Amino acid sequence: MSSQHKDLRLDQDTLQELLLGPWAEDRRQIRKIMEEPVFHHQFNLTKEEQRDLTLKQLHELADRKLIGKAYPTEFGGKENPGANVAGFAEMFHANPSMQIKGGVQWGLFGSAILTLGNEEQHRKWLPGVLNLELPGVYAMTEIGHGSDVGNIDTTATYIPENDEFEIHTPFKAAWKEFLGNAAVHGKAAVVFAQLITQNVNYGVHAFFVPLRDDDGNFLPGVGGEDDGFKGGLNGVDNGRLHFTQVRIPRTNLLNKLGDVDDTGKYSTSIPSSGRRFFTMLGALVQGRVSLATTAANASALALTGAVSYGNQRRQFNAASDIEEQVLLDYGLHQRRLIDRLARTYADIFVTNDLLEKFHEVFSGADDTDENRQELETLAAGIKAVTTWNAMDTYQEAREATGGAGYIASKNRFNALRDDLDIYTTFEGDNNVLLQLVGRRLLGDYSKELSNPSFKVLTRYVAERAENTLYQRSGLRRVVQQVSDVGSDRRSAAWLKDTDVQRSLFTDRVRTQVAEVAEALRPVAKKSQVEQARVFNENQYDLIKASKSHAQLLQWEAFTEALEGIKDDETKKIMTWTRDLFALSTIEDDLGWFIEYGKISQQRARILRQYTNRLAARLRPHAQDLVDSFGYNQHHLRMDITSGVEQERQDEAMEYYRRLRASGDLPVPEKVYRARQK
Amino acid sequence: MSSQHKDLRLDQDTLQELLLGPWAEDRRQIRKIMEEPVFHHQFNLTKEEQRDLTLKQLHELADRKLIGKAYPTEFGGKENPGANVAGFAEMFHANPSMQIKGGVQWGLFGSAILTLGNEEQHRKWLPGVLNLELPGVYAMTEIGHGSDVGNIDTTATYIPENDEFEIHTPFKAAWKEFLGNAAVHGKAAVVFAQLITQNVNYGVHAFFVPLRDDDGNFLPGVGGEDDGFKGGLNGVDNGRLHFTQVRIPRTNLLNKLGDVDDTGKYSTSIPSSGRRFFTMLGALVQGRVSLATTAANASALALTGAVSYGNQRRQFNAASDIEEQVLLDYGLHQRRLIDRLARTYADIFVTNDLLEKFHEVFSGADDTDENRQELETLAAGIKAVTTWNAMDTYQEAREATGGAGYIASKNRFNALRDDLDIYTTFEGDNNVLLQLVGRRLLGDYSKELSNPSFKVLTRYVAERAENTLYQRSGLRRVVQQVSDVGSDRRSAAWLKDTDVQRSLFTDRVRTQVAEVAEALRPVAKKSQVEQARVFNENQYDLIKASKSHAQLLQWEAFTEALEGIKDDETKKIMTWTRDLFALSTIEDDLGWFIEYGKISQQRARILRQYTNRLAARLRPHAQDLVDSFGYNQHHLRMDITSGVEQERQDEAMEYYRRLRASGDLPVPEKVYRARQK
Repeated sequence: MSSQHKDLRLDQDTLQELLLGPWAEDRRQIRKIMEEPVFHHQFNLTKEEQRDLTLKQLHELADRKLIGKAYPTEFGGKENPGANVAGFAEMFHANPSMQIKGGVQWGLFGSAILTLGNEEQHRKWLPGVLNLELPGVYAMTEIGHGSDVGNIDTTATYIPENDEFEIHTPFKAAWKEFLGNAAVHGKAAVVFAQLITQNVNYGVHAFFVPLRDDDGNFLPGVGGEDDGFKGGLNGVDNGRLHFTQVRIPRTNLLNKLGDVDDTGKYSTSIPSSGRRFFTMLGALVQGRVSLATTAANASALALTGAVSYGNQRRQFNAASDIEEQVLLDYGLHQRRLIDRLARTYADIFVTNDLLEKFHEVFSGADDTDENRQELETLAAGIKAVTTWNAMDTYQEAREATGGAGYIASKNRFNALRDDLDIYTTFEGDNNVLLQLVGRRLLGDYSKELSNPSFKVLTRYVAERAENTLYQRSGLRRVVQQVSDVGSDRRSAAWLKDTDVQRSLFTDRVRTQVAEVAEALRPVAKKSQVEQARVFNENQYDLIKASKSHAQLLQWEAFTEALEGIKDDETKKIMTWTRDLFALSTIEDDLGWFIEYGKISQQRARILRQYTNRLAARLRPHAQDLVDSFGYNQHHLRMDITSGVEQERQDEAMEYYRRLRASGDLPVPEKVYRARQK
Repeated sequence: MSSQHKDLRLDQDTLQELLLGPWAEDRRQIRKIMEEPVFHHQFNLTKEEQRDLTLKQLHELADRKLIGKAYPTEFGGKENPGANVAGFAEMFHANPSMQIKGGVQWGLFGSAILTLGNEEQHRKWLPGVLNLELPGVYAMTEIGHGSDVGNIDTTATYIPENDEFEIHTPFKAAWKEFLGNAAVHGKAAVVFAQLITQNVNYGVHAFFVPLRDDDGNFLPGVGGEDDGFKGGLNGVDNGRLHFTQVRIPRTNLLNKLGDVDDTGKYSTSIPSSGRRFFTMLGALVQGRVSLATTAANASALALTGAVSYGNQRRQFNAASDIEEQVLLDYGLHQRRLIDRLARTYADIFVTNDLLEKFHEVFSGADDTDENRQELETLAAGIKAVTTWNAMDTYQEAREATGGAGYIASKNRFNALRDDLDIYTTFEGDNNVLLQLVGRRLLGDYSKELSNPSFKVLTRYVAERAENTLYQRSGLRRVVQQVSDVGSDRRSAAWLKDTDVQRSLFTDRVRTQVAEVAEALRPVAKKSQVEQARVFNENQYDLIKASKSHAQLLQWEAFTEALEGIKDDETKKIMTWTRDLFALSTIEDDLGWFIEYGKISQQRARILRQYTNRLAARLRPHAQDLVDSFGYNQHHLRMDITSGVEQERQDEAMEYYRRLRASGDLPVPEKVYRARQK
């Protein structure tokens, strides 16, 4: 479908290349293959049937070697973590359950063996992981400990007499919970447990623990429960596991970071228990990057459906011979969908950047502690906003397509929304992740205060060298606060200025972080209880600061992306799109900006009006903007984008045309009564 | 569970009585019966199995005479529309599919026969409607016409030769769509069609049309399709129907509002075709009132689950012997749940008022045109906000209960959310409904301007006599605009003042409506196309005005409810709850209030801080506030409220107590290393 605007033309090919990012070919490859029905979700199945289907799809993926690009070439991989995640994110539109079950198998279970195990362990287990002869479980979360992995209660106690570890869940709260592959298919698990030897607890380590025999029966001491029917992703067999003094060989400890010799003596390459623990959780970071990237794709898919329908559907009166407006011609519909379209572009650009950073660390190109921590913080914030945005986008897309949108088997919005839902809390609850970001922002702020050069906002945003990811944001240029005191307060030009937008987004993070820091300062030397109390009073505001930070990252990524567009007309349209993202985001928090004098009351009004106008201005390009995502009917599989709506309208118009021509059209009551008089 | 606050005590019994409203006994009766497992939703069934289960439940309802309170005593009813809807809303927590399928049968299909048919038709069909021997379809919506019922394309043409009507869907866009009972169970339908006789189209009328024979096969000329697997409510068999020159006797026209004699002459008791059409859609108003009331109940159920869990769940470290905070002790968690708890109280109070108004009209106690229109407008706005609030509440409750919340078969949040989803667009898309409210507000505004006494905001809000519903809001007292110019700008006292809150909410509606009206004024005498263009530019802002209006209604209902509380301590807690509703609602739109000078920048800061404090102040009462809703474990059926969480914590604490006592607790690595040094 081509642009509906008579003046400007958007170059879809250029834009699509930009959207697909550095691993465009990998994305295209997997996206294309995912058109095959063998990989598709099917509706109206019981969870047992969905699980069987999903397992078959995993075998298909494994047999055709479509997975494992992050693994060493020795095992058929390409040692390319970025390409791996980019391809993973393209499986969502086929069947999210397949994607997530694959993520459990190759992204969590396999990755843990790869990153935490030694070469012998690799050779022993990775072939089975990759060809799916060894379906496995990543057994970290416990019932009593969701996000607090450091305090899990499962123990792995070294028994020198037998040269074995004893894996034990001492009470029900220590049972491993919500584990994919645990209810039915898992033959083994990587179990995270407190390593105890010589009566010392060395903290969380990972152990390879066989679960089931070849007939699928639990091995002695192992037990579990099926988690049952979930809110979504019912093709994944989640369950609980418990271990009653289960013995495994000492060599089943994945010992890259810490080891026990046959006398029971512990040794480690990372003496700091905190850092060791951090490294142990590496697979979770990959998970967060994967979820963020998937969420951005998911939003793009939903909007392709809703915008396409909005461009066809009319509440038309075929009898009147007046062709009425399509839904997207309505001002409200534009704000509902085009605002979110702009935000989805921001989501895609920021996740593309995140993916590059991830690849930098996980490929070893720049795997410093500092860069890894930076990645962790970026992944946490970006995963939180992109997954929430996706949930919001699906709900709006569903409502914007009315009853048709609710027929899941025809238009998929609800089914995909249900699968996405858990993304907001898995691999880390979004609010917990934002708190992690917030603590980091506070830390950087206090470092900055003690630094007389006072030149940075946050270390990981601006302190990096010129050629790295977030430096380009040029945060240093705008440490002075913006205030809206310009004489020309009635102009929208100020709002379109890139530097002004940057200042607004930057100032907000800075001010919000500073406020929380100021609130915490008086209790800095008081008791932990007192500090916790004041921190708690400011938790809500700190989370808001973290959200503001994530939005700054989105804005920066979008603005950076603009620079890569050579075609003038495309660049113009994309700049409006960036502006709409910026201004609708600011509009959502306008109270803050006015309260703090960043935007004057007069300009606030201009902003609200101008944001409406921007959405209207982008309206003729909305179809091009969604078509640039590159999804075809095989990916969408939505009745509302199939063209049947237009066919029905044409049929109805033709019917009335004939009826009028024949003179058989009944007279409306009003006309009849008027004639009577 | 009792209050956790040492000072004030909330009187749950009094509060519950207030919440249950004027039909408390009817609610209690149905709520109690709904504890029986026979009425409960079951998980992991195919849609076919769900449909069978739901049909059985409808038979159980019919056999036990639990439905039909709105019907005449002649047919076993109580002629009590209010009691009927109050009871209906209590079926949600058992099985929403049962509720909605029952709503189709007795609230739409049966109501249409009752309100639009004559006495002979009543005697002929209503007994079968009520005892479910005649399962039926309410065939109004068409594929091409969602919310635009006036322009439906199905025709009913009178054929004098045979004294019959011919029902016909001339093309696919005219097929009847999204009809409950249509896919499988419906034996007959009330079909809405353009009545044509003597070549005049008299507009939309309702016809009784048999659909299937006793073996469930379509009758000649009737056809249809199954809508398939939906986003929720899969116990309801939605489908499409089409009619190819289907003949029915003339006496199958439900002829209370308009009739055709055997010569083909049309007659009507309502000469205005517009008013006749409006009356024809009466069943939809009952539907909107029912959905709003249900949505308020649904939010209460979700928050009972999430708050109870928040009061038990800890990310605790059993090994450390320090009992950590429960989730609800965290500032963020308080804002997430207690804000929504306050809003749910507002939802309940405003739907209780709406229900009274509905009863007034539908019982005939005050069934004037004016009062009916007032009801339509109130129902439209309140249905929109309460159903959106419920969706938002379910999502937050799900996330606030983490992975446990995602296990639908154990904690139901997702399943109930999926069922609720369609409430936002059925019986009228929420945005379309708000536009209806907005047009009404604009109309009232222009009337007001032409009225020199200038004393009212909107007719249906304030022009009613002293003893009617919304008069009590005393809007007349505050026609002067509030501005925040007080000298004591640092005080929160101003924000707690009931008159100030009233002024803030009232002024916002007034100003927003006035702005749109002003924007429309210059084109008032221009072409329809030009008027439509400017209206469209302001559509987004008009919808915001309508939302503001609905929030004003909520605030008023809550404030009115406070007056009914005699117990001082309960009243105090409830006043804080009302304040939290008011201030968190204002906080969400703070930009508007500052921009328009209603709240000063200084006060805005106070407001944000005070809102945090209010949530914290209510925290000790949160359990009492949800327990007052009155749901027990049979209604909740949630693992997280069953007490297992506390049991697990106790078991873990006991384990570590014994381990420490025995001296077998391993030494933490850090302590060990410190000793080594």
